[in-house]
Amino acid sequence: MPSQQTRPARGMRDFLPEDVRRREYVIGIVSSVYQRYGFEPLETPSLENIETLMGKYGEEGNKLIFKVLRRGEHETSGETDLALRYDLTVPLARVIAEYRGQLPKFFKRYQIQPVWRADRPARGRFREFFQCDVDAIGSRSMVVETELCSAVCDVLVALGFRDFTIRLNHRAVLAGLLQAAGVVPDLHASALVAIDKLDKIGVEGVRAELAARGVEEAAAQAVVESFTGAVSLDNAGALVAHLADARAGIEQLQKIVAFSASTSAAGFIRFDPSLARGLSYYTGAIMEVAVPDLAGSLGGGGRYDGLIGMFLGEDVPACGFSLGLERILVVMNERKMFPAEVEQTSADVLLTVFDDASIPEVLKLAGELRARDVRVEVYPEPDKLGKQMKYASTRRIARAAILGGDEIARGEVTIKNLDTGEQQSVPRAALAQTIRALCK
Amino acid sequence: MPSQQTRPARGMRDFLPEDVRRREYVIGIVSSVYQRYGFEPLETPSLENIETLMGKYGEEGNKLIFKVLRRGEHETSGETDLALRYDLTVPLARVIAEYRGQLPKFFKRYQIQPVWRADRPARGRFREFFQCDVDAIGSRSMVVETELCSAVCDVLVALGFRDFTIRLNHRAVLAGLLQAAGVVPDLHASALVAIDKLDKIGVEGVRAELAARGVEEAAAQAVVESFTGAVSLDNAGALVAHLADARAGIEQLQKIVAFSASTSAAGFIRFDPSLARGLSYYTGAIMEVAVPDLAGSLGGGGRYDGLIGMFLGEDVPACGFSLGLERILVVMNERKMFPAEVEQTSADVLLTVFDDASIPEVLKLAGELRARDVRVEVYPEPDKLGKQMKYASTRRIARAAILGGDEIARGEVTIKNLDTGEQQSVPRAALAQTIRALCK
Repeated sequence: MPSQQTRPARGMRDFLPEDVRRREYVIGIVSSVYQRYGFEPLETPSLENIETLMGKYGEEGNKLIFKVLRRGEHETSGETDLALRYDLTVPLARVIAEYRGQLPKFFKRYQIQPVWRADRPARGRFREFFQCDVDAIGSRSMVVETELCSAVCDVLVALGFRDFTIRLNHRAVLAGLLQAAGVVPDLHASALVAIDKLDKIGVEGVRAELAARGVEEAAAQAVVESFTGAVSLDNAGALVAHLADARAGIEQLQKIVAFSASTSAAGFIRFDPSLARGLSYYTGAIMEVAVPDLAGSLGGGGRYDGLIGMFLGEDVPACGFSLGLERILVVMNERKMFPAEVEQTSADVLLTVFDDASIPEVLKLAGELRARDVRVEVYPEPDKLGKQMKYASTRRIARAAILGGDEIARGEVTIKNLDTGEQQSVPRAALAQTIRALCK
Repeated sequence: MPSQQTRPARGMRDFLPEDVRRREYVIGIVSSVYQRYGFEPLETPSLENIETLMGKYGEEGNKLIFKVLRRGEHETSGETDLALRYDLTVPLARVIAEYRGQLPKFFKRYQIQPVWRADRPARGRFREFFQCDVDAIGSRSMVVETELCSAVCDVLVALGFRDFTIRLNHRAVLAGLLQAAGVVPDLHASALVAIDKLDKIGVEGVRAELAARGVEEAAAQAVVESFTGAVSLDNAGALVAHLADARAGIEQLQKIVAFSASTSAAGFIRFDPSLARGLSYYTGAIMEVAVPDLAGSLGGGGRYDGLIGMFLGEDVPACGFSLGLERILVVMNERKMFPAEVEQTSADVLLTVFDDASIPEVLKLAGELRARDVRVEVYPEPDKLGKQMKYASTRRIARAAILGGDEIARGEVTIKNLDTGEQQSVPRAALAQTIRALCK
């Protein structure tokens, strides 16, 4: 009788076998695509010293960090010294600073690990969730942004997505457009929060929110015009032509778009001046990937040339992209995008057991089959054949093999298809091959 | 300049790419072998409600659990409500209790996840480490123990081990031998602690420790005789013939040994009356796997028919085996057991970049190669060719491809072997095939 205390903790989830198989399928594709781009795997500990994390995610972030009590004699003091990983970017910055001398000049890593945030749980929002991060450290070239976008497109296409968009913008262009519209610099961050809601609250909503945030009426009107007028990169360039930083940003975006025409991102990537991205550490291009049937994004990223410097003391250029595993899974589950082999159970065949005396022979047969890469479940105890068949059905194992005294004497095995009820006798030496052929 | 604060927290580790590749190689073999036995993957959350864990691991265990501070207004109270997973067995028991109705009659799961213990860090002992658990729930048949031992042997053989032993014993046989030797029941647990040190402190040490623990001299002598006299299963059976529980234990061990003769465990498994296993929840057969050059074990397990009942309220038979990933890795690293492909870097070829103008063509070539499963790193910015080659060498990338204006005009690519310095021109359409052939 499941009682309260056997449920997972609030915002946490148990993954039963079919869940794990789906998660591993996605993770497998993500990592193999990233490897094809020359990215290498990195893993960092779940627990970081608390000072490593505090102050890196803003005030709101500080509150959402899970903090771990000191141990031993300090346990009753309420002091904390460790905290659970909140994202994969800050640990990466720490790793770069710590191992700089050992790492190649350009360090390209991917990292697929859980992070923890004490957010209020909601549909699709959990307190333990996986991020799939990919980052390239050490170069300011727009080849980096281009390759990241191309890799993300390859991942999504390999998973079966066709209707996604990579929205592209640039922090300096954002700032330039705001400045050109007459928003004073002190209000930029606040105005971006309003603009970020364009999808949700519409033009009038954004204008009202800008006013509420202290942006003058004329400026608010100009902002709405520049950000909603289906602004092309050329139009945006004209608006900020007098601002050196923004102009440089436009040039970078032009390069990314031009380079992308030669990659798998062609057709998926488009400039979107209203893309703001929440995190404060971005310094250059920013990207976000979206599908029509999911509010919010599947992931996003950008250039953050300053973050590593917080640990290393010298700036190191960096750019990355993070995909949310849970968000990808939500859409793939709803759209039924998983191939049949992911939905299989683990066993190709159930070996039935008549009596104690035949167990050694059944175990021997299991070993022979497994040595030929057949996945074999042995029914663990003698039981009525009907019950064993029924068990195989509930496990969705498609075949049962019967090795009774007669079969042993003849050197044969009877194999039964549990869907059709058909059965055939097969020479024992040919059994693995027969099962593998049936599994195709 | 790495400073104190960029190191991982005490007892925690960063895994650089070569570490991750080795870990993933072992995890890949462990899971594929377990799948071949019909085990299915399960994952549970890192954080459990604190009551789920407290009291399950003894008093010492309680102290080693990492406890998480309550959030929000409670943060300053020092109260804790969550704790980090301490092993994979208690969460499994919780999962069985919670999802009993959804799970098959025999639930066979494997689970490979980190656990956290606030132990004093030492060589090979970390505060975050991975366990590879495999458990079969729902049957009292000795087929379960046999299959578990066979699966563990397959894992170790697949990893390249040949010199391991699976020590086998039984809780009821242990108790019977102690009783037969004249140790009073109240001292059994204490005596087992002493016997467990036989490898480390020898016969005289054990005898002294038994005395110190209050075991009478004659009993201590009898204990040492029964546990060290290279006792066979038959000898042990004779010593405990008058004790029903112990006799039943002997019969179970005889079955495991007889069944194992037909499996891959034949030749690796042997009865060892001095094997005690620390954990208190074992109720039947216990196993431990050891190699000569590692103090302690690579892993162990046994039958625990009572643990799930702590959550479910009714007893469910269960038996499992846990391998320690870190311990396996320590031995494999020392013995250099990793195949060459695990030690590779992620890229098969580096595409060099002459100038901005050729970047689109280089990116296009990268896409063509990746579509044919070649792992390609693109040098991210125009640079002197020598520097790019040097970078490839430091990354241990064996080949560089050069796509200059001449090559583009001729529809060719120059490919250079960075070990020998040899280079050849290859038609662009044949490049993927050429590289794949060279990678063999």
